[in-house]
Amino acid sequence: MAGVMSAPERIWTAALIVIGDEILSGRTQDKNVAQIAAWLNVQGIRLREVRVVADESDAIVEAVNTLRARNDYLFTTGGIGPTHDDITVDAIAMALGVDVEIHPQAREMLQGYYETRGGLTDARLRMARVPAGSDLIENRMSGAPGIRHGNIFIMAGVPHITAGMLDMLTGTLEGGRPVLSAQIGCWVAESEIADLLAATERAHENCQIGSYPFFREGKTGANFVIRSTDPASLELCVAELSSRLEEGGWPVVTGGI
Amino acid sequence: MAGVMSAPERIWTAALIVIGDEILSGRTQDKNVAQIAAWLNVQGIRLREVRVVADESDAIVEAVNTLRARNDYLFTTGGIGPTHDDITVDAIAMALGVDVEIHPQAREMLQGYYETRGGLTDARLRMARVPAGSDLIENRMSGAPGIRHGNIFIMAGVPHITAGMLDMLTGTLEGGRPVLSAQIGCWVAESEIADLLAATERAHENCQIGSYPFFREGKTGANFVIRSTDPASLELCVAELSSRLEEGGWPVVTGGI
Repeated sequence: MAGVMSAPERIWTAALIVIGDEILSGRTQDKNVAQIAAWLNVQGIRLREVRVVADESDAIVEAVNTLRARNDYLFTTGGIGPTHDDITVDAIAMALGVDVEIHPQAREMLQGYYETRGGLTDARLRMARVPAGSDLIENRMSGAPGIRHGNIFIMAGVPHITAGMLDMLTGTLEGGRPVLSAQIGCWVAESEIADLLAATERAHENCQIGSYPFFREGKTGANFVIRSTDPASLELCVAELSSRLEEGGWPVVTGGI
Repeated sequence: MAGVMSAPERIWTAALIVIGDEILSGRTQDKNVAQIAAWLNVQGIRLREVRVVADESDAIVEAVNTLRARNDYLFTTGGIGPTHDDITVDAIAMALGVDVEIHPQAREMLQGYYETRGGLTDARLRMARVPAGSDLIENRMSGAPGIRHGNIFIMAGVPHITAGMLDMLTGTLEGGRPVLSAQIGCWVAESEIADLLAATERAHENCQIGSYPFFREGKTGANFVIRSTDPASLELCVAELSSRLEEGGWPVVTGGI
């Protein structure tokens, strides 16, 4: 067995619920999965599962209660605006068995934001509603804050607003070591080197190798992503995979093709 | 109550399982959710829920067994290639309690495809493996076919290959009336017209109105998507929403902004 052995380490996991009919209808291309996944990696937290659910209370409640129980963290995106189809706060409160209340600090934030924008109407005040016992996540992009309740993080649906909320949370969540990754590429059909990949992965027990084929410029190729939380193991695995591929007659492109 | 009343109709639903560590790591931006959602709409089938799971047998089995039971159709994407991380067929067979077998026609297809590409190796033959009792979905883009087992459709992960497989299935699945949609837009903060939207939706019981805010060119706007399976109802709802917005002083852009 090659590879540096390390003590088994605690793996921190998160789940994400994307809430919104617009994703399920195909109208909107989701960008929050990739964005939140990449951010979580840097915090040392692994995104383990994602569900996309409709703007329906039952569907949200089911997903929240299943996923929060089996992950360290649960994120949701979408459904926290002022309109009738924004039911995320109510559904999460129902899942938690707590009341919905106006958060005084959120009301203040919204009052400030809307002071020069026509004032705080009832519809806008909806965005200050939180499951009882919540803290706020500051939103520097627009008026309505995100919400934290225990291990649940309720984020906006609009990706750049979510990005700002993630910035506010950076470094505040306990995690393990970040997952490191390296990529190499080859002009080879992955079916030609399937055994080579499997053998290399078996020889490096704290690394995973993913194989991602493509067809470009009339040729078949594949990129290989090697992942590990240990930098030395990662380096060894990349080196061995590269030399096995080169020995097989497939020149390796560092960084991928 | 405005709106054309119609008899309650059977709603056909589908679920989708996106299988792949590359989506959960943030490396790859999924495109299959939007693509399959849009295709299903045209077949008169509603995508009701999506799960993204890792390349892990238990996660796939759990998702398959939950979702196939409560939807008319279940689609999966990803994990049907020749490499060690391609475990979709095995996991689905496990979920169904059936064996994995080589499908003779798939073997033939692969033999033909690889005849001029180095021959059919053991790794490549993996792509002819199916849960016992499956039919094939032709793949005109590359060698390996998709798989149909009862109400389960096992598709490729690479979006343009999935697109080809969807083409082959077009018109073959029983569905209801397609969901029609229309979009209009306004330069208005959605919080200003939340009540107007809710009231309009309540007045058109077989229509749903979604509100999608944006911030562009330094201004706040929102697009409104109206959905219905009934063309006349859709038209009435769009007309009423448009005139309510215009009366409020917000010029409407047909088709959205």
